[in-house]
Amino acid sequence: MEKTNLHETLQKVRERNPLVHNITNVVVTNFTANGLLALGASPVMAYAAEEVADMAKIASSLVLNIGTLNSQTVESMIIAGKSANDNNVPVIFDPVGAGATLYRTETSQRIMKEVKVSIIRGNAAEIANVVGEKWEIKGVDAGETKGNVVDLAKTAAQKMNCVVVITGKEDVITDGETTYVVANGHPILTKVTGTGCLLTSVIGAFAGVEKDLLQAAVAALTYYGIAAEKAVKQTAEQGPGSFQIEFLNQLSLVSEVDINQFSSVRRG
Amino acid sequence: MEKTNLHETLQKVRERNPLVHNITNVVVTNFTANGLLALGASPVMAYAAEEVADMAKIASSLVLNIGTLNSQTVESMIIAGKSANDNNVPVIFDPVGAGATLYRTETSQRIMKEVKVSIIRGNAAEIANVVGEKWEIKGVDAGETKGNVVDLAKTAAQKMNCVVVITGKEDVITDGETTYVVANGHPILTKVTGTGCLLTSVIGAFAGVEKDLLQAAVAALTYYGIAAEKAVKQTAEQGPGSFQIEFLNQLSLVSEVDINQFSSVRRG
Amino acid sequence: MEKTNLHETLQKVRERNPLVHNITNVVVTNFTANGLLALGASPVMAYAAEEVADMAKIASSLVLNIGTLNSQTVESMIIAGKSANDNNVPVIFDPVGAGATLYRTETSQRIMKEVKVSIIRGNAAEIANVVGEKWEIKGVDAGETKGNVVDLAKTAAQKMNCVVVITGKEDVITDGETTYVVANGHPILTKVTGTGCLLTSVIGAFAGVEKDLLQAAVAALTYYGIAAEKAVKQTAEQGPGSFQIEFLNQLSLVSEVDINQFSSVRRG
Repeated sequence: MEKTNLHETLQKVRERNPLVHNITNVVVTNFTANGLLALGASPVMAYAAEEVADMAKIASSLVLNIGTLNSQTVESMIIAGKSANDNNVPVIFDPVGAGATLYRTETSQRIMKEVKVSIIRGNAAEIANVVGEKWEIKGVDAGETKGNVVDLAKTAAQKMNCVVVITGKEDVITDGETTYVVANGHPILTKVTGTGCLLTSVIGAFAGVEKDLLQAAVAALTYYGIAAEKAVKQTAEQGPGSFQIEFLNQLSLVSEVDINQFSSVRRG
Repeated sequence: MEKTNLHETLQKVRERNPLVHNITNVVVTNFTANGLLALGASPVMAYAAEEVADMAKIASSLVLNIGTLNSQTVESMIIAGKSANDNNVPVIFDPVGAGATLYRTETSQRIMKEVKVSIIRGNAAEIANVVGEKWEIKGVDAGETKGNVVDLAKTAAQKMNCVVVITGKEDVITDGETTYVVANGHPILTKVTGTGCLLTSVIGAFAGVEKDLLQAAVAALTYYGIAAEKAVKQTAEQGPGSFQIEFLNQLSLVSEVDINQFSSVRRG
Repeated sequence: MEKTNLHETLQKVRERNPLVHNITNVVVTNFTANGLLALGASPVMAYAAEEVADMAKIASSLVLNIGTLNSQTVESMIIAGKSANDNNVPVIFDPVGAGATLYRTETSQRIMKEVKVSIIRGNAAEIANVVGEKWEIKGVDAGETKGNVVDLAKTAAQKMNCVVVITGKEDVITDGETTYVVANGHPILTKVTGTGCLLTSVIGAFAGVEKDLLQAAVAALTYYGIAAEKAVKQTAEQGPGSFQIEFLNQLSLVSEVDINQFSSVRRG
């Protein structure tokens, strides 16, 4: 993938301000909305069964995140997902904590079955649990990767027939045939809650303007990782509070020059 | 309106610490509470049908915001609103996204019908949809104003028999007879989620100490806009993360000198 | 209590990264998760009746907070609490706003009756209302302490048979027999929403690694108060926005040297 493509996709997001409909968890709503605004997207959060079909229909993409799921929200996710499918709106799914409880695993599998998901994003343990492979998980923040993550991603993509993004030390993006590995990002991201969830919504914004979903995902991941790297440089030893704020700043500032200089993508 | 009045009203908020009962959306709860604290008000969030009547009764004002409405919360809003009405507690309503979905439009109209609202605050599209005028909206963040906003505000105030605040490039405040236009504020506010919602709650705090609701609203809008202008000066090119934090700082710092120097109010 | 004990307990949190299961209010979820991450704990939020028993079982501690309670969440709290009890997972309870509405008072008493709570944390008014003593409260942020707080804490601990933490100008920690008073902290904490709620979750993290619950609570309170004092020094006159961010930074930075130099604990 050319660096020009990565920047072009980012540029399209900033010009078109895609409306990203998020049905996400109560921990990350504010951070997600502010991150999407910093990027140049238009976030909307809508949860009620009475309106999610209408909202998903006019959105550029729909992001489903089960971080604090409950039975009502899951029903809304299914309704919104079907409406998105009917209207060719891409659906991005984040199976937060799949494997941590049976309810999360089963709900994830139900969503994958009832909704045509375009891109799923999680850590290795979450993705493994959704497709029924063995992997360890502790709480919802796990992701220490033992085993071959690239293989897991490919298997998952083939089984679920969608683009799979597994994030960790390095990020793997695959449609089951073509695979990319992105080495951007920084471990401090794990010290700020919702950085995984926001990433999923950012992928949603990119998928809302770019039909080539592999390119959308790779462009989102490099953009996001570069913003983190730049924020770390600015805030160095200050701590996770300052990093979090500078990261929002950098999400609005990543430029073509940054992408050319810092993006790290290879074939996997 | 005299600049002295604007500062006197702010001063009353800081001295009396009005208890503002918010039934608001899950995206902005934290930012709203912190903004109200910075101002000097006492925020409380309570949603359960079992308690909202009790809470609204002891509050200085009640703020209803449908940003992430669902059927249960709407019922609680109605219960709280009626309790506020019975106890002469002013009700401030923010019809977030009215027009974006039918559910939001109808719920807004239902709230306006079942509850005596003192002040409604929205962008032009939202207010137009609540009163049944034609206006365009995209998602919940729209607000590009075509058409005469002052006329829309006056019509809405007369139809709904309450104070109407339409925010945009300039803000219009009217009770249908007397109209003010406030030119404070800054476009970067649209890059931080919940700045409209927090503004509605800030108007609630001012309405909790000032019986002249036009004065309460104008004082709130100038105060809020000046805090934004000062925050922009401090954070310049840094980005929306830094602006957001400095804005909270400035909400606690706006002084009589600032109001005399920067407030921009004219008759509309 | 020796300063060495305080630091040892903090060190254990940082080494073991206890999984703290929070069922908390919608205002503070993000701040709570980020505060726990800054400390070195692993936060998880899970609310659904379908999964809370499973999540509480694998957690190091369970934190219940009724800040924005509703009937469904209360049921989940009871289920999670019983599961924690069955699995020897300590339960920490924050009765936010007990006394402000009858619903909060009765729910607090119900939780204390149906769940074996290890530590309860509130201001004097909240604790008084839970145990049925007279005390004044305004909204959910009250806590002006009139009357003898140490006596109240001891009475409450004996009546409820658990460790009681009453926070205010000074903090009182007691199991009904042994009592400590912690003088760390800073009034600006009352200008940032959720600092009480996060404190309760931080106590949860400490209780997740330290069986001596008095020591866990005292270590948590000194650690937390010192972080606030350090943050105030860094941000001085800037305002509550900057303080909030620096406080998150300092939660990750409090060191053995800081504890030796700044902790202020006496017998009460």
